[in-house]
Amino acid sequence: MYDQEMAQKKIDGLRSELDALDEKLVGLLNDRATIALKIRALKPDANYGLYDPKREEEIFTHIARINQGPLYAENLREIYGAILREMKEMRG
Amino acid sequence: MYDQEMAQKKIDGLRSELDALDEKLVGLLNDRATIALKIRALKPDANYGLYDPKREEEIFTHIARINQGPLYAENLREIYGAILREMKEMRG
Repeated sequence: MYDQEMAQKKIDGLRSELDALDEKLVGLLNDRATIALKIRALKPDANYGLYDPKREEEIFTHIARINQGPLYAENLREIYGAILREMKEMRG
Repeated sequence: MYDQEMAQKKIDGLRSELDALDEKLVGLLNDRATIALKIRALKPDANYGLYDPKREEEIFTHIARINQGPLYAENLREIYGAILREMKEMRG
């Protein structure tokens, strides 16, 4: 088999691994959204504001602390920026 | 206990659940990054371009198909836009 074909076959295999991993990721993101909606519903009773920048900073600090790479803290911060934004904007 | 305190305690408990979930999410995002780096390294041998909009569209279609909510397809698309961007920009 040509080297080129071999590399293409390896990429196909790795893309299947990514697809399987994306199914887990989408499941976890939805689990996260379910909990975020529960918190949102409790905030008026707790007398908390809907937007809490201190809590967001806590989340960013936490994910940077537990990160083992290869993503850098700044990559994760960008990804989590989008995650937290979409959780806030989600219709409840 | 006041209703307000009760709601605050419930929020604390749910935030602990979110923190535990974020540890799994960060692990999966890094697993995804590891595979993405392997694919990137194989692309020159496979004679594939580093950027492949058709493959990105496949990923968006796949995640929309498997999504069971409460996130909407458009929320997931925004989050995955950030994920794919950061995976591309990651230093290898």
